[in-house]
Amino acid sequence: MIVVMKKEATAKDVEHMVQRVANLGLKPHVIVGTERTVIAVIGDDRHAYKDALVGGSGVAEVVPILAPYKVASRETKPEPTVVKAGSLTIGGNRIGVIAGPCSVESLEQIVASAVAVKEAGATALRGGAFKPRTSPYAFQGHGLEGLQMLAAARDKTGLAIVTEVLATEDVPMVAEYADVLQIGARNMQNYRLLEAVGKTNRAVLLKRGAGATLEELLLAAEYILDAGNPNVMLCERGIRTFEAHTRYTLPLASIPYLHSKTHLPVVIDPSHGTGHRDMVPSLSAASVAAGADGLIIEVHPDPENAMSDGYQSLDPAQFRQTMAQCRKVAEAVGRAM
Amino acid sequence: MIVVMKKEATAKDVEHMVQRVANLGLKPHVIVGTERTVIAVIGDDRHAYKDALVGGSGVAEVVPILAPYKVASRETKPEPTVVKAGSLTIGGNRIGVIAGPCSVESLEQIVASAVAVKEAGATALRGGAFKPRTSPYAFQGHGLEGLQMLAAARDKTGLAIVTEVLATEDVPMVAEYADVLQIGARNMQNYRLLEAVGKTNRAVLLKRGAGATLEELLLAAEYILDAGNPNVMLCERGIRTFEAHTRYTLPLASIPYLHSKTHLPVVIDPSHGTGHRDMVPSLSAASVAAGADGLIIEVHPDPENAMSDGYQSLDPAQFRQTMAQCRKVAEAVGRAM
Amino acid sequence: MIVVMKKEATAKDVEHMVQRVANLGLKPHVIVGTERTVIAVIGDDRHAYKDALVGGSGVAEVVPILAPYKVASRETKPEPTVVKAGSLTIGGNRIGVIAGPCSVESLEQIVASAVAVKEAGATALRGGAFKPRTSPYAFQGHGLEGLQMLAAARDKTGLAIVTEVLATEDVPMVAEYADVLQIGARNMQNYRLLEAVGKTNRAVLLKRGAGATLEELLLAAEYILDAGNPNVMLCERGIRTFEAHTRYTLPLASIPYLHSKTHLPVVIDPSHGTGHRDMVPSLSAASVAAGADGLIIEVHPDPENAMSDGYQSLDPAQFRQTMAQCRKVAEAVGRAM
Amino acid sequence: MIVVMKKEATAKDVEHMVQRVANLGLKPHVIVGTERTVIAVIGDDRHAYKDALVGGSGVAEVVPILAPYKVASRETKPEPTVVKAGSLTIGGNRIGVIAGPCSVESLEQIVASAVAVKEAGATALRGGAFKPRTSPYAFQGHGLEGLQMLAAARDKTGLAIVTEVLATEDVPMVAEYADVLQIGARNMQNYRLLEAVGKTNRAVLLKRGAGATLEELLLAAEYILDAGNPNVMLCERGIRTFEAHTRYTLPLASIPYLHSKTHLPVVIDPSHGTGHRDMVPSLSAASVAAGADGLIIEVHPDPENAMSDGYQSLDPAQFRQTMAQCRKVAEAVGRAM
Repeated sequence: MIVVMKKEATAKDVEHMVQRVANLGLKPHVIVGTERTVIAVIGDDRHAYKDALVGGSGVAEVVPILAPYKVASRETKPEPTVVKAGSLTIGGNRIGVIAGPCSVESLEQIVASAVAVKEAGATALRGGAFKPRTSPYAFQGHGLEGLQMLAAARDKTGLAIVTEVLATEDVPMVAEYADVLQIGARNMQNYRLLEAVGKTNRAVLLKRGAGATLEELLLAAEYILDAGNPNVMLCERGIRTFEAHTRYTLPLASIPYLHSKTHLPVVIDPSHGTGHRDMVPSLSAASVAAGADGLIIEVHPDPENAMSDGYQSLDPAQFRQTMAQCRKVAEAVGRAM
Repeated sequence: MIVVMKKEATAKDVEHMVQRVANLGLKPHVIVGTERTVIAVIGDDRHAYKDALVGGSGVAEVVPILAPYKVASRETKPEPTVVKAGSLTIGGNRIGVIAGPCSVESLEQIVASAVAVKEAGATALRGGAFKPRTSPYAFQGHGLEGLQMLAAARDKTGLAIVTEVLATEDVPMVAEYADVLQIGARNMQNYRLLEAVGKTNRAVLLKRGAGATLEELLLAAEYILDAGNPNVMLCERGIRTFEAHTRYTLPLASIPYLHSKTHLPVVIDPSHGTGHRDMVPSLSAASVAAGADGLIIEVHPDPENAMSDGYQSLDPAQFRQTMAQCRKVAEAVGRAM
Repeated sequence: MIVVMKKEATAKDVEHMVQRVANLGLKPHVIVGTERTVIAVIGDDRHAYKDALVGGSGVAEVVPILAPYKVASRETKPEPTVVKAGSLTIGGNRIGVIAGPCSVESLEQIVASAVAVKEAGATALRGGAFKPRTSPYAFQGHGLEGLQMLAAARDKTGLAIVTEVLATEDVPMVAEYADVLQIGARNMQNYRLLEAVGKTNRAVLLKRGAGATLEELLLAAEYILDAGNPNVMLCERGIRTFEAHTRYTLPLASIPYLHSKTHLPVVIDPSHGTGHRDMVPSLSAASVAAGADGLIIEVHPDPENAMSDGYQSLDPAQFRQTMAQCRKVAEAVGRAM
Repeated sequence: MIVVMKKEATAKDVEHMVQRVANLGLKPHVIVGTERTVIAVIGDDRHAYKDALVGGSGVAEVVPILAPYKVASRETKPEPTVVKAGSLTIGGNRIGVIAGPCSVESLEQIVASAVAVKEAGATALRGGAFKPRTSPYAFQGHGLEGLQMLAAARDKTGLAIVTEVLATEDVPMVAEYADVLQIGARNMQNYRLLEAVGKTNRAVLLKRGAGATLEELLLAAEYILDAGNPNVMLCERGIRTFEAHTRYTLPLASIPYLHSKTHLPVVIDPSHGTGHRDMVPSLSAASVAAGADGLIIEVHPDPENAMSDGYQSLDPAQFRQTMAQCRKVAEAVGRAM
C-alpha cells in the first residue's frame, strides 16, 4: 500500500500517518520525493486498512498494491481449477457448454430442449425455475415444479442441471435438484446468498453484475470460497455502458484478465451479453477464440413463443450450427469442444 | 407499443404479427410508411408483451409507449406521496435529513452520533447493524446488538432509525427495531427481499443500484408497492461510469426526472454519491437546490477512526456547517429544512 | 511514480528496472514488501515516463503520483483565475451567465435573444455561427454572416459574444468577431485547434468531451495555456453513461473536484447536460449551489420553431424565472449573480 | 417517426402537432390508444425533423423509425464494400492486417518494423507521423520526415501505408505519402477533417470515438461518403466504460451489428482496445472469429524502448504467433488471412 501525502502536508501529518500505519501492525517506510512525500506500507494490506488511512489528515490518496482477494487469486493457487458437476466439466482443455431455455415452461418444453441441446453437443442443461424479473408483472417461474421438470430432463438425457437460486431459504431445495447453483447478476453482491451456496457441496456459476467491476466479482467469489466451497465458475454476461444497440456490452478482455488473476474458470454468456439472437453465433465463436472455458447459451424449441427471452434464444437448428462453428474455432486455438 | 417491421419484411410477416398481436388481446393497427411498415398496438401493453413480439419474423424492433410500472407512476397518482416514520417526514415542503455513521460501532459512538446530528437539525438517524461489504474480510456489523444500540439512541434523542436489512430472514427482527428499512444498492433487485419489506408496515428507503436504470428502480419500487406497502422513498446514490475521481457519479437530473414520473419522494445520498468528505457539503446544497425531498449523509464523531467509510463521513462540525448552508438554499428554492 | 513488480519478478528484473529509471534521469528507491517489490521513483515524473516503464519485464503496473498537468494545476498557481472578456467575468465572487440560442438563425432572432437574455441578467450572449452537427444533413450554421449578426447583437446590447470555432483555419475570422472562443465537446482533443486558440488573445471556453476524463480535460487546457493563453474557462456539459432518460449525465461533483485541482474557473451547461428544457431550471440552481463560477444556458425566443436544440432551450419567460431562482441560491451560498 | 403525446395532451395539442407534421411535408396519421394518442409520421424522416417536433406542446417523446444515415446504410447498398489501397484489401473473404509501431521513430525502426510485419503476413504498415497526444509534453511525431520514412518503408516492402491525419491543412501532404488516411478516435467528430478526407481519392480508416455511439460513427462515415469518397473502413477500438483493468472496453458485438446496418467493412484494433500487450493475441483471434474484416495491431521491433504505446505493442515474434493463431481461426470461420 502506498500512502501519498498532499503537497501541503506537514511533517506532523507525515509523522501522524507513520504512527497510524504502525498501529495497524504494518511497517511504514517514508520516501521524500521532489514534490510529494509518500509512505510505502510493508505487510499484507488485504484487510480493510486502506479505508482506515485514506481519510487521514494530509493524505492525498492511498494506492493498494496487493489485490484484495486471496483464495481466488492465481498467486495463491497457480494451477487452474477444474469444476466438475455431473456431465459438466469446466476448466480443462475441453470447453463445456451449458444450453437450454431461459425458463422451464413445461415438462414437454424442457425435455425437448434437453434432447435438442444434448444432440448438438451441450454438456449441461440450463433452465430457470425461479426467475428474477425486472417487472413484478412478468412470469416468475414454476418454482419447485420447475425443479422437478429439470430433474426429469436430466433423467432422460443425463445432462447436468444448471439453475438459478434466488434466496437463502431456497438453497436446500434447489441444491437437492440441481447440479450447479447459478447466482444471477442481480444477486452477485447478495452476500448472505453467497455464503449459503458456499456451504453447499454443489458447484456454483457466479454471474457478474452488470455494474460490478471484475475485482468485485472476484471478491464475491471469495465469499463462496471462504465459506468452504471451492467449485466456483465465473460468468461474464456483459456490463452496463452507454451502448444501446445491445442489451449489455460483452467485454471479452475479461477472459485473459481473469485468467491472469485467478485460477477459477471463466464461462461466457453471449445470449444476455448481446440480447440479440443474431449476434449469439459470432460472439460464441469469439468467446471460444478468446479462451473461454465454457459457454452458456439460451436455446428454446420455439423461441417466438417462449415465455421469456425468446428474442435472444437460438432455435435448435441455429444452436447446432453455432456448435459446429465453435468446435472448429476451438480446434484452431488448441482446445476441444 | 409500436412494432417496427424490417424493410424486407413480407406481407406474410406483417399478417403473422397482426395475428400475434390480436392473440395477445391487443388491437393491431397497420401503417404503411414510405420505407417501412409499422404496427401500432392499442391496449395496455405494460405486461411482458414486448418480449413476446420482438423476436417475431420480419420484426426490426418493438418500441413500448407506456411505462412498465403502474402503481409507482405519477399518471396513476398525481399527488406526491409523503412518507412519515417517527420523527422523519419525507415528501412535503420540509426536507428531511437522515444522518449518522456508516456502521454502528458501539453504544457510545451511536449515541454521540445521534445527539450531534439531532443538534444540527437531522430528523432521523442512520447507522448500519448489518453491513454488506465488498470484501469478506471487512467488518460486517454488530447485527442484533447493533439494532439494540440504535434503539437506545432513539430513546435518547427521539430520532427515527433508518437501517439496512440484508436478507429476508432478518426482516422481522430489523422491523422490530427500525422505523425505516433501508434496501441497499446491492440488493435493489433482490426481489424476495423487496416483497418481504413490502409486507411489513415499515417505511422503506430503496437505494438505486449502481448499474440500474431509473426505470429498473421504479420497477423495484413497484414490487414493494405491489406487496401492499405504500411508504417507499427512492434514493439516488450514484451510478457506475468511467469517472474515477469520485466513487460513483451522482446524477442530480434524477430528481426532476423522478418527480415527473412518480409520486414517490426522492432522497439523495451525497456521501456514497461522491465518496469524498470534501465534496459532500457542495453536493448536499446542490441536491437541495435541485429539489430533493431528503438527504442521507454519513456523519461520524471521529471519522479518522471510523470502522468503515471514514473518508466520506463528515465530523459533527462539518455537518453543522453543511446543514446551515443547506437550510439557506432550501429557503432560496421555497422549501424548509 | 511507483513501479510495482509482479510477484514472480526476479532480482534481475528489478535490477533492470532500477537501471531504466536511472537512465531516465530519475532516482529509484527499491522497497521489498512481504509479497511484492516496488520501486519508488523520485523526481518530476510528469513527462511520459510511465509509458516507458509500464511494459518492462516483470512489471505489474506503474502508478503515477503527480498529476500530468502542470500549468493548469492549483499546486502551481493556488489563487483562482478570473477570466474577463468584455461584459463577461467568470471566476470571481459574481457568477457569470452566458445565454442565447443554439444557432444564430437570423439577425432578428439573435438580436431578440440578446435583448431578452440581457434583460433577465445574462452577462454574455451565446450563439453558433459554425455548428458541428452529428448528421451531415442537419443545419450547419450561417458562418461569417452569423458572426456579423452576433456582432450586431453585441452593438445593440453590449453583451460579450461567445461562439464556437470548429477549425484552425477559421480561428482568425472567429477571433475577429467573438469575445470568447468556444471549443466544443467534439473538439476537446483536437490539439491543433487548441494550439491555435492558445495563440490568440481571446478568452477560451473549453467544453469537456462526452467520453473524456477530467484529467484529459485539464491536459487539453494545458495545451492552450502552454501556447500562451491564460484565459481558459472549463465547461462541464455532461458525460456518456448508460442513462438514457437524459441526453448526457451531468456530474456536478466536477465542480469541487476541479476547484481542488486547478485554478481555472468552472462553467456548467445544464442545457446539453440534460437535454430537456424542463430539467434546466433545477439543474441551473443546483450548479450554482455546488459552486459553479458560471452557467451557459440555451435560450430561444421561440423554442418550438428553433432550427436546432429547441427541445432543450428555455423561452425568455422561463429564463427570467430560472435567473431569479438562481440569484437567490447564489446569495444563499455567499455568491452574487 | 412516431410522435407520442403525453397522457394529459389535449385535442388541441394533437391538432397542433398534426399541423406541424404536415407543414414539414410529412403525412400524419393519428392513432388513439387506450391511454395515449400517438401520431405516426409517414415519409422520409431522416432529416432533422425529430428536433423540430420533440419540443412541441403536449409531446412526450418522438421515436425515429428510420436510421439517420443513408449512404452508409446496408438498405441503400446491400452488397458489402471492398476497400483496396495498394497492398491492402479490406472487405472481402480475405482478412486484411495492418501492423506496425504507434509512432515512426526513425528510418531504421520503421523499415525494420515493415520487414518484420510483412514477413509475418501483414498486408499494410501502420505508423504515426503526426501523433495526437493527451499531454502537450509527450512526443508529437516527426511530421513530414515521418511520412518520408514511411514511404521508404513502402519502397522496401511494397506494403501500403496507413497513417493518421490530424488537421485539414495537412490532408494534401499526408495524402501524397499515405495509401490510407486514418482519422483517429479523438477526431471522429471533427467534421471539417471528415469533409477534407472525403474530397481526396485516398481510402479512409475511421476510428470510433471512445464516447461515441455506433450511430454517430455511421454518421461520421456519412460525412466522408457524402463528400464523394466511397472507400471508408470503420474501426472499432474500444469505448469508455467503468472498467479500469483495460484501457478501453472492446465490444466485439460491434462487428455483427455494423455488418447488419452498413455495407462498409469493419476493422478491429485490439491494441488500443485493451491497452495490454498480453491481451492482444486472444482478442485478435476473437475479432477474427466474430467476423472482422481486418485487424490493426501495434508491433514494435523493441517495445520496451518504444517512444509511445510500448506496453500495448507486440514484438515481432509475438506478432508472428498471433498471426499464425488468427490464420487458423480465420479458416475455422471460412475466411482466409
